[in-house]
Amino acid sequence: MKGKVYLVGAGPGDPELLTLKALRLLQSAEAVLHDDLVAPEILQLIPSSAQIHNVGKRCGKKKILQGEINYLMVALAVSGLRVVRLKGGDPLIFGRAGEEIETLRRHNIPFEIVPGVTSAMGAAAAAQIPLTHRRASSALVLITAHRASEHQASEKDAAEKDAWSKFVASGATLVIYMPGQNYSDIAQRLRTAGLAGETPCAVISRATTKYQRTHRTTVHDLHRSPQLAAPTLLVVGEVVRMADPAALVEGFVMPDLSKGNDGVRPPALFKTSLSQAPRLGTDKEPVA
Amino acid sequence: MKGKVYLVGAGPGDPELLTLKALRLLQSAEAVLHDDLVAPEILQLIPSSAQIHNVGKRCGKKKILQGEINYLMVALAVSGLRVVRLKGGDPLIFGRAGEEIETLRRHNIPFEIVPGVTSAMGAAAAAQIPLTHRRASSALVLITAHRASEHQASEKDAAEKDAWSKFVASGATLVIYMPGQNYSDIAQRLRTAGLAGETPCAVISRATTKYQRTHRTTVHDLHRSPQLAAPTLLVVGEVVRMADPAALVEGFVMPDLSKGNDGVRPPALFKTSLSQAPRLGTDKEPVA
Repeated sequence: MKGKVYLVGAGPGDPELLTLKALRLLQSAEAVLHDDLVAPEILQLIPSSAQIHNVGKRCGKKKILQGEINYLMVALAVSGLRVVRLKGGDPLIFGRAGEEIETLRRHNIPFEIVPGVTSAMGAAAAAQIPLTHRRASSALVLITAHRASEHQASEKDAAEKDAWSKFVASGATLVIYMPGQNYSDIAQRLRTAGLAGETPCAVISRATTKYQRTHRTTVHDLHRSPQLAAPTLLVVGEVVRMADPAALVEGFVMPDLSKGNDGVRPPALFKTSLSQAPRLGTDKEPVA
Repeated sequence: MKGKVYLVGAGPGDPELLTLKALRLLQSAEAVLHDDLVAPEILQLIPSSAQIHNVGKRCGKKKILQGEINYLMVALAVSGLRVVRLKGGDPLIFGRAGEEIETLRRHNIPFEIVPGVTSAMGAAAAAQIPLTHRRASSALVLITAHRASEHQASEKDAAEKDAWSKFVASGATLVIYMPGQNYSDIAQRLRTAGLAGETPCAVISRATTKYQRTHRTTVHDLHRSPQLAAPTLLVVGEVVRMADPAALVEGFVMPDLSKGNDGVRPPALFKTSLSQAPRLGTDKEPVA
């Protein structure tokens, strides 16, 4: 009997940010191929009877080629196993899942894709940054700052440079995956793309884990940022100001809550709702 | 005692795509304020002792202003309740969470943000579209096609038109949230932004639920698409070709798996791994 492969997102770090489906599949896996970015607490959920392969390629520490991962994945499935290919975040973004999908199709291996919480959403939640805001940004761009390998460098870099200029000009929030540790370099690339020096940005390290750290700065001062532990993400744009409770976006005026929005008193609906609240009738007024 | 508010992502539809944390919070909630897009199966997870408020604003069916949602959320928390503000997908994208966060800070309500699987990732997983691909797209753009209200229309529309042109010129994959049912209009806006008529795109309706439907077309033929049930998402870009098993991206050549990648034979690591596989030794060769 032919096995099956599940391409599964492990989420941004916190094991509680696994989906129910990812948990179920991990607990019934017979073989797991995982990236370096997956937390040890998540790997502990895999039954001891399953074989586990770290196929991480991060930081060049281990030299595993994509073709080798594809080979292993197919071989395990053909041997009849229930295989989980576990990727940090969501499997379909920056994970080379496209190549794995092609491989599985070519070998007629049944497969299923299970989405996960991508790192951008994890980092933004941890740093309390709304990624879009109707007065500050109406679009979100996810990119990487990973440099192309040397023999492809010139062509790919030129295309990337051009694309970054377009994204900056659009006014969208940018989330840069794998920004690396060379903050001077990335700040220079952002400036070259046309971004103003005073644009706020945040480096978020190991988001949603207990080791999480956030450093807020501007593109101008980015080069002076502390070196935070990988994985990191860089969020760039006006919405980063909202990570700070004290700072409000210019022009954003809160409605007078005592009157409801737009000067209208709260409708009867809410009075009814509140009268049903099991703990109402305390000595506190609902809204001061 | 002051309550607490959790801004929680409910994921793209399938209740199994809730995170473990979202499930735990829903099961211990005392009040839940949810959007229209949240599936009934998810709402059934809320204990019967909790009060549940549908604060959905979709399609103008119910007229609830953002200020009213803010008011209700604060009032429930101040009365001491453990409040879950449940949003479809991820809470920090296209959900006006920024305004809710400001409100909670202003009223000193403790709060926490719990990320979720955003709809783009759910739809892509369901349609098997890799959102990035090292040969086809190196960036992902998330936008909405929601029209601004009439008194803001001219200014906002002009800004949006300009931003769309930038995104198209970048070559990134576009995922358009809330594309609406007027496909002629959205196709026209994409063409005006500079997109070629033959660019592949896919309308994905009610992704990850049992009612899911996918319609693949091109920007040129988009206006002839069937009217699929909301919520829908529109994915636009070369990667959409990869939704079809029969179609490969031009220029994409699979490695010869029998030799590993780049003509190198599979390393000893894999032979060892395979010899450990509990079900190996079947009558099938690992790779045909």
